[in-house]
Amino acid sequence: MAEIFSMQHKVLYYEADITDKLSLPMIFNLAVLSSTQESISLGIGPDYTHAKGLGWIILQHVVTINRRPKTDETVTLQTTAKEFNPFFAKRMYRILDAAGNILVDIDALYALIDMDKRKMARIPEEMVDAYQPERVKKIPRQPEPVLVDENKAIDREQPYAVRYLDIDSNQHVNNSKYFDWMQDVLDTAFVKTHEPIQLNIKYEQEVRLGDTIKSEVQLDGDTTVHRIWSGETLSAEASIQWTPAVK
Amino acid sequence: MAEIFSMQHKVLYYEADITDKLSLPMIFNLAVLSSTQESISLGIGPDYTHAKGLGWIILQHVVTINRRPKTDETVTLQTTAKEFNPFFAKRMYRILDAAGNILVDIDALYALIDMDKRKMARIPEEMVDAYQPERVKKIPRQPEPVLVDENKAIDREQPYAVRYLDIDSNQHVNNSKYFDWMQDVLDTAFVKTHEPIQLNIKYEQEVRLGDTIKSEVQLDGDTTVHRIWSGETLSAEASIQWTPAVK
Repeated sequence: MAEIFSMQHKVLYYEADITDKLSLPMIFNLAVLSSTQESISLGIGPDYTHAKGLGWIILQHVVTINRRPKTDETVTLQTTAKEFNPFFAKRMYRILDAAGNILVDIDALYALIDMDKRKMARIPEEMVDAYQPERVKKIPRQPEPVLVDENKAIDREQPYAVRYLDIDSNQHVNNSKYFDWMQDVLDTAFVKTHEPIQLNIKYEQEVRLGDTIKSEVQLDGDTTVHRIWSGETLSAEASIQWTPAVK
Repeated sequence: MAEIFSMQHKVLYYEADITDKLSLPMIFNLAVLSSTQESISLGIGPDYTHAKGLGWIILQHVVTINRRPKTDETVTLQTTAKEFNPFFAKRMYRILDAAGNILVDIDALYALIDMDKRKMARIPEEMVDAYQPERVKKIPRQPEPVLVDENKAIDREQPYAVRYLDIDSNQHVNNSKYFDWMQDVLDTAFVKTHEPIQLNIKYEQEVRLGDTIKSEVQLDGDTTVHRIWSGETLSAEASIQWTPAVK
């Protein structure tokens, strides 16, 4: 069983949103930060994968949020490899407060791709040895996001042109930006008065500079059901469960 | 003369842009981070100003960039109060590399406003005592940005709807977002192959959620001249000088 990698992080004001709490995109950025640091410490970081022409892509995030940390709060980021098979990798992420309470818990599913051919690649044995995951034949299924009801109308939709600063050094839109489009399409009064507590997102296709995406949402009580389209291509499906915010 | 406040900061991957170097918005975020930390350490941070119904607003940034730090690079953020008069405050910011080289140098001009009345307020004597600036009658003039030539056409323009995540806990668009709009309106091929070396921006009016801004640019050799409009109101004027990027 793999060891849990830990690192400290202080939430900075520019990582918070209007509520002065860690923004949704930053939750994902901090997760990726911790596993990148773990990979570097194991000698199989970005330099290693890039030299092999490989790159990790995120397929799904299943997230439970108990409390979003506030600006200036110091939190612990934890991560560890869970089940791996030759093509897929599951990883655990957690954000803990100073007292050790779990603020955020993420189950993430990854695959490795050949960057030139843009197709799935076998995870090198050397990497599996380093991460020490549980080796399995079949990756345990994760819960699916709530899907858009095709028999109902879309409640709100909005186009967004991909911006220069949405692109990261991998030359595509950083996965965290999807939350920008998903939150912005909602009614501001709703987002300001509700806290996200569960979130499930499947990334279907990457988005690139020059694309214009469409962010769609159906409202279903305290659940918002999202789709991100790039032209006719479905880029992501997600559902978020909210609870009225306590001031 | 005021002491120089210093703090360390490691550039994280989500603070970098497509070039894997610290993004323009993040240069401004790190500056504000350092002076906020200085203010807190002096007992006159956001808690103090908010309790008095006051808030700092940024009027101008004059920036020299010698080199943008890279992801994972640890830098030193420095700041100090320079000249203050009863209504205006000048502040120095620097980003230094591990060897002490100045990577970025910023001259910033601030004013204090009454948050309710949205008008200028006198800087409390207690704050001036704490910051220990040079007390002056007249704030030294800063260089102006290159202005749009009214006799020439605008070369490129683009509307941008303000997004939920553009808003910070002060309920208006964070000043750093202006660079998002200013860089995005440029030709991507140009931004990817040029480094900003000088930047001068004057903030005229704040931008709020619900606004749609227009980002305009005139191209003048290696200088790009920008205006940000919110409706008929000029929100910011800026010029950026670029140099071909060395790979």
